[in-house]
Amino acid sequence: MSEYHEIWMNAALEEAGKAAGSGEIPVGAVTVFENEILVRSHNLVEHLRDASAHAEMLVLKKTAAVLDRWRLTGVTLVVTVEPCPMCAMAMVLFRIDRLIYGCSEPRTGACGSLLNLPGNPALNHRIEVVPGILAEKSGKYLKDFFELRRA
Amino acid sequence: MSEYHEIWMNAALEEAGKAAGSGEIPVGAVTVFENEILVRSHNLVEHLRDASAHAEMLVLKKTAAVLDRWRLTGVTLVVTVEPCPMCAMAMVLFRIDRLIYGCSEPRTGACGSLLNLPGNPALNHRIEVVPGILAEKSGKYLKDFFELRRA
Repeated sequence: MSEYHEIWMNAALEEAGKAAGSGEIPVGAVTVFENEILVRSHNLVEHLRDASAHAEMLVLKKTAAVLDRWRLTGVTLVVTVEPCPMCAMAMVLFRIDRLIYGCSEPRTGACGSLLNLPGNPALNHRIEVVPGILAEKSGKYLKDFFELRRA
Repeated sequence: MSEYHEIWMNAALEEAGKAAGSGEIPVGAVTVFENEILVRSHNLVEHLRDASAHAEMLVLKKTAAVLDRWRLTGVTLVVTVEPCPMCAMAMVLFRIDRLIYGCSEPRTGACGSLLNLPGNPALNHRIEVVPGILAEKSGKYLKDFFELRRA
């Protein structure tokens, strides 16, 4: 099973690489339905001039369009970095089954770091969370990007 | 000044009424720039089949498109109900100046109820928050809507 996790995360990392290549913060995501990758995207904040155009939001919206429903039961979201509160709450609202992520985000992560929205008993949907898949690789993408920007 | 707040909130309430009229949870929002209403929208989750199509997300995205920038400095967002974590974090990401809202949302509100994201010192942007504007009116819209659905 974790072999699948790595295959899906590598697809998300490929998306993160595209983001980095076009000057976006390198975060990539894919959704999986019935064990197949359904939708792929990456951070497009600068390109779309939309601060909400995080990889997770884009794949959630596209997945809803593809499945023609906003309740994404049966869907797994795979993202290279721990989601922020906007994206984590969107996953709760879209009612996905499972979240798989790469490295943690200590500053704004909302799936165990700053907050834990998928595990918040006050919200009416639970999400299974699998952290730390290929975490070093996704963390390195981010580290390289910010070092380059500071240089 | 609070006279302006009520004028803007009445415009947001008008949007909430449109949502209710089309079977959506009655939440409306407007953005204000240089004391003028710039963009108006309301909850469109069912219509767009998009669980993230909350009134606040829609006006933030449209405002960024109108101003042709994703940093919404100088913008006030006026919404009939306390925003959820997705929308509250989006406001932080879009770097709006000020949030004015109507009634509180004890269950999922992220601006003082369940969480307080605009006032979270870990996030790198502060938003001035003005709660309770025409709160009874916006609360009544929601109450009537849910009572009707239960009937």
